[in-house]
Amino acid sequence: MQSGKNIFFDNVLIIGVGLIGASVALALKEHRASVKIYGYGRSEQNLKNARERGIIDNYSMDIHAACQNIDLVLLSTPVGSFTDIVFRMRSSLKRGTMVTDVGSVKGRLVYELESMMPEGIHYLGSHPIAGGDKSGIDDARGDLFRDARCIITPASKRNSDCEQKIIAFWETLGAKVELMDPSLHDEIYAAVSHSPHVIAYALVNALESINSQYLEYAGQGFKDSTRIALSSPEMWKDIAIYNRENLLQALHIFKKNLDTIMCCLEAHDATGIQREFLRAQILRMKLK
Amino acid sequence: MQSGKNIFFDNVLIIGVGLIGASVALALKEHRASVKIYGYGRSEQNLKNARERGIIDNYSMDIHAACQNIDLVLLSTPVGSFTDIVFRMRSSLKRGTMVTDVGSVKGRLVYELESMMPEGIHYLGSHPIAGGDKSGIDDARGDLFRDARCIITPASKRNSDCEQKIIAFWETLGAKVELMDPSLHDEIYAAVSHSPHVIAYALVNALESINSQYLEYAGQGFKDSTRIALSSPEMWKDIAIYNRENLLQALHIFKKNLDTIMCCLEAHDATGIQREFLRAQILRMKLK
Repeated sequence: MQSGKNIFFDNVLIIGVGLIGASVALALKEHRASVKIYGYGRSEQNLKNARERGIIDNYSMDIHAACQNIDLVLLSTPVGSFTDIVFRMRSSLKRGTMVTDVGSVKGRLVYELESMMPEGIHYLGSHPIAGGDKSGIDDARGDLFRDARCIITPASKRNSDCEQKIIAFWETLGAKVELMDPSLHDEIYAAVSHSPHVIAYALVNALESINSQYLEYAGQGFKDSTRIALSSPEMWKDIAIYNRENLLQALHIFKKNLDTIMCCLEAHDATGIQREFLRAQILRMKLK
Repeated sequence: MQSGKNIFFDNVLIIGVGLIGASVALALKEHRASVKIYGYGRSEQNLKNARERGIIDNYSMDIHAACQNIDLVLLSTPVGSFTDIVFRMRSSLKRGTMVTDVGSVKGRLVYELESMMPEGIHYLGSHPIAGGDKSGIDDARGDLFRDARCIITPASKRNSDCEQKIIAFWETLGAKVELMDPSLHDEIYAAVSHSPHVIAYALVNALESINSQYLEYAGQGFKDSTRIALSSPEMWKDIAIYNRENLLQALHIFKKNLDTIMCCLEAHDATGIQREFLRAQILRMKLK
């Protein structure tokens, strides 16, 4: 892990002090105690809490006041709020400020955010893959990003100074940084994360449709399969909407694969069922 | 936990010495060292292994020889093989022998098995819920059934002596026994276990259809959602076929719930998506 001297920001504003925002704050303080961290968010109670626990140094409920003299803005609210927040704050950012985010969706969103930046202010999208189904500062940890993957998604206007500093920022927090095209990012994450979330939510709802009392008989298999249905509906609704096309495509492909098994079942085709199960088992075994 | 004196069987035959069969053997020996355990199965190498490790006392590759002087037969092969095995062995069982199984499907199968038993031989179905996605004797453990649920499914011909002894058997191994109607058992397990397995297999196959190289980006969410796709295709093919009607119904209900979310997505209905996600999150939170 790199030392705190690779954090090139003196004043950091965290917009949305939840699990990820607060974990970034804790990690930053661990690596460079002199960094000043400011918070902005919807709930003053949450910001007060974060200040009392020393997660942030101060906060403001006014976005313009919060932006004063900030070197790095980290957007860590649900992705659906990013453009609105940037629209409201952009006139208050000083020249040279860098803006990044921690959203699970990139694609068109990063081009849109980039195009909203005033002259002299650089935006670069980030997606640290950490946090799981938790949310809120109670679960925040300074080591949340250690050995986590962090995908950086440059858009149209590449700025090497900004890229270097954002990469160094995440690396100092322990993440393994990887650059990726924003559209590819969204296609991949629709397949490995966004569609599994939707399927998990639908699977729990199916149990409710059948008989919610059967939940009593749910064992480890059901628990593991649906753990991600514990994730924040607000956050995941935004991810679903913003990655709508890729997500719908991944879900259609999933349904086709499910239909293949269901057709075998309808036809009492035991060989076909075993073939489909085996195909999945072989691929799943590659995942450690 | 009850003491070994509640194991009323001196000679036990385990048909299919895999994870569950071998774990029963280990647990039996722990509770009553004097019990003799015999094995029967397809693979002589596996039976030899089990004998060398002291899991079973002896084995035979001949079903008639294996049945000699046996007090309890435990069927722990894939459920699709039960009727064939019973058909082949029934003439060799002595009067008074009890037969049970560890299959994940009950329903019509237990009526069929019951009707196959010769005069004076009692069958009672069991479903110990343990083992997860593992199979094979390497993962066998004597404490596998400790605090596990074990469902006993009496069919038409109830025999209180047989019920008492089979219940005591599982309770001595540490399981919490519950009696249930065989059809209800299959409806419940289609919802909480069998359909999630099929969905997990289909989800892994969907990733292969999209791009199997994306597996590299699969994180904890994907891993947990698809862990049960590691389960034995041979075993689960049988479960799917034997619980076909309930399973198809559960999968149709799942698809309806998935379609509800997909329709919201098609219509850009963020409120509808959040409502569906929230409904699932609330029910899932009830599961500890």
